[in-house]
Amino acid sequence: MKHRRFFTDLCLSAIILVWSASVPGEMTGNQNNPAGRDIMAQVSTIGSLMAGNYDGLYSIGELLRHGDFGLGTVHSLDGELIVLDGKAYQVRIDGAVHDVPHDMKTPFASLTWYDLDETIEAPAGELASLIMFLDNHINKDLFYAIRIAGEFDFVKTRSVTDRKPYSPLVEVVKTQAVFERGKCRGVLIDLYCPPFAQGINVPGHHFHFLSEDKTFGGHVLDLKISKATIGLDVTRELFLMLPEGFNAGDADKEDLERIEKGTK
Amino acid sequence: MKHRRFFTDLCLSAIILVWSASVPGEMTGNQNNPAGRDIMAQVSTIGSLMAGNYDGLYSIGELLRHGDFGLGTVHSLDGELIVLDGKAYQVRIDGAVHDVPHDMKTPFASLTWYDLDETIEAPAGELASLIMFLDNHINKDLFYAIRIAGEFDFVKTRSVTDRKPYSPLVEVVKTQAVFERGKCRGVLIDLYCPPFAQGINVPGHHFHFLSEDKTFGGHVLDLKISKATIGLDVTRELFLMLPEGFNAGDADKEDLERIEKGTK
Repeated sequence: MKHRRFFTDLCLSAIILVWSASVPGEMTGNQNNPAGRDIMAQVSTIGSLMAGNYDGLYSIGELLRHGDFGLGTVHSLDGELIVLDGKAYQVRIDGAVHDVPHDMKTPFASLTWYDLDETIEAPAGELASLIMFLDNHINKDLFYAIRIAGEFDFVKTRSVTDRKPYSPLVEVVKTQAVFERGKCRGVLIDLYCPPFAQGINVPGHHFHFLSEDKTFGGHVLDLKISKATIGLDVTRELFLMLPEGFNAGDADKEDLERIEKGTK
Repeated sequence: MKHRRFFTDLCLSAIILVWSASVPGEMTGNQNNPAGRDIMAQVSTIGSLMAGNYDGLYSIGELLRHGDFGLGTVHSLDGELIVLDGKAYQVRIDGAVHDVPHDMKTPFASLTWYDLDETIEAPAGELASLIMFLDNHINKDLFYAIRIAGEFDFVKTRSVTDRKPYSPLVEVVKTQAVFERGKCRGVLIDLYCPPFAQGINVPGHHFHFLSEDKTFGGHVLDLKISKATIGLDVTRELFLMLPEGFNAGDADKEDLERIEKGTK
C-alpha cells in the first residue's frame, strides 16, 4: 500500500504541475485566452461602440482572464469601467463607484497584465504637460499600459449611460454627468494606442481615474498633478475579440475627439 | 508490482492527456501562441512594410505555429509568401516557387488555421466579379480566410525583391516582375480584412496564387476563373505581433492601392 500511495501522490503532483502550466492557454467557449502577459486584449472596436452597440458581449469574469489593468464600459453603457489590480469597478452616471459583478458583460474594454517596465516621476501640472511628457518617453508606435499613482490637486471626470433604443456615443456624451474632486490620492489608468490602431481603439492616451478610497472616478476630462509616479508597461501584442454578426460602425475622427474630451 | 505498473500507467496516461491539451497555449520566447484556431495572426503592419522595414522578424517555423493558411513576404522582401495546407512557399522575382526553410524570417505575414465554414461555387469570369460576389457573401466587418480552388483561364501574378538600403514598397513595386499563365489548376489564397483594420493590414481582399503543380504563383494582379469552389472561414479574432523598436510607417491609401494593384 505504501507504493500505491507514493505513485498516486506522484501522479497527482505531476498532473497538477502540468495542468497549472496549461491554464493560461485554456479556452472558454469561443473566447481564446492568449498565453502571454504583454498583450493588449480588447473586446470590440471603438467604431462599433460609437455606433451605439452597447449590449454586453463578454462577461467581466472572462475579461479578467486577459489582464488586471484596463478600461472600457459595461452593458448598456452603464458607466465607465476601470480595471485596477485585477478588480473591476464601474463609475455610474450618479458618480458612485461600484464593484462590477463578474457576470456583468462589457460591449467594449481593453486590458493587459500590468508588468512594470520602467518608473519615472510625473511632471507636476496640467493634463497637457503630462501627455507631452509621456509622449517623449514612449515608442508611439506601440501599445502601453500606463499607471500614474499619487497626489492630484484636482481631477475632473465624467460618466455616461444609455438605454434602448441606444443612441450613437457622440449623442450620449451630450448628456454626460461631470464630477470634480479637489486634492485627492488615486490612480490614473492610461491605455496608449498607436495611430495605426485608430479604427480599433482611441488613438493616443485614454485616461480613467480611481481615487484611493474608491469613492470617486470615471473618464478623465481634466486634472492637475501634485506629485505622482508613472509606471510604464510596453505591450507589443494585440488580441482583438469580435462578436458574431459584428457591426464595426465608423470611428469618425471629429466625433471621437468630441467623445473623448466631452465637448459638444 | 501489479499495483505499481497500474498506477504508473494511469499516471503517464493522465499526464499525456493533460499535456496534449496544453500544447496550443505553449509559448516560444516572446511570441505567445493563442490557443484558438479562429484567429488571424499577424506579424507587423502593412504601414511598416510599406515604409521599407523588410528585415525578417519571426521565423517561418514560429509562424506556422499560428496557422496553416495565409500570405505575406520574407526577409529582404525576397518574393511573395504563400502558406497553404501548412506549408510555406516563396515565389521569387525570377518566378520560381521554392519551399521556405523554417529558419527564414518574415517581416510581414498573416495567417490562420483554415477551418471551412461554408462552401460556394465561384462565378466564372473576371477578378472584379469574384470580389463583388465574395463581398455579397461575407460580413465585411470581420476577417476571413478564403480559399478558392479550381480551374483558371489565366492568372497574372507579380513578385518583388529588394536589397539594402531598402526602398519604400511603392518604389520597389515599380521594379516588380510580372508573370502570366494560361489555363491552369491551382488555389487562390485570399485574406479579407475589414476597413477598420486598414492601419494594420490591406483592407479588403488580398489574393496570392499557387498552381496545383507548385511551379507558378505570386501576388495576383488579374485572373479569369473557369470553374472553382470558394471555401469561407470567418475569423473573429486578431492577434498582432510587433517587434521591439517597432516603426509603424504610414499606410497611405493611394500608395497602398498602387502597391496592391501593381500600377505605377
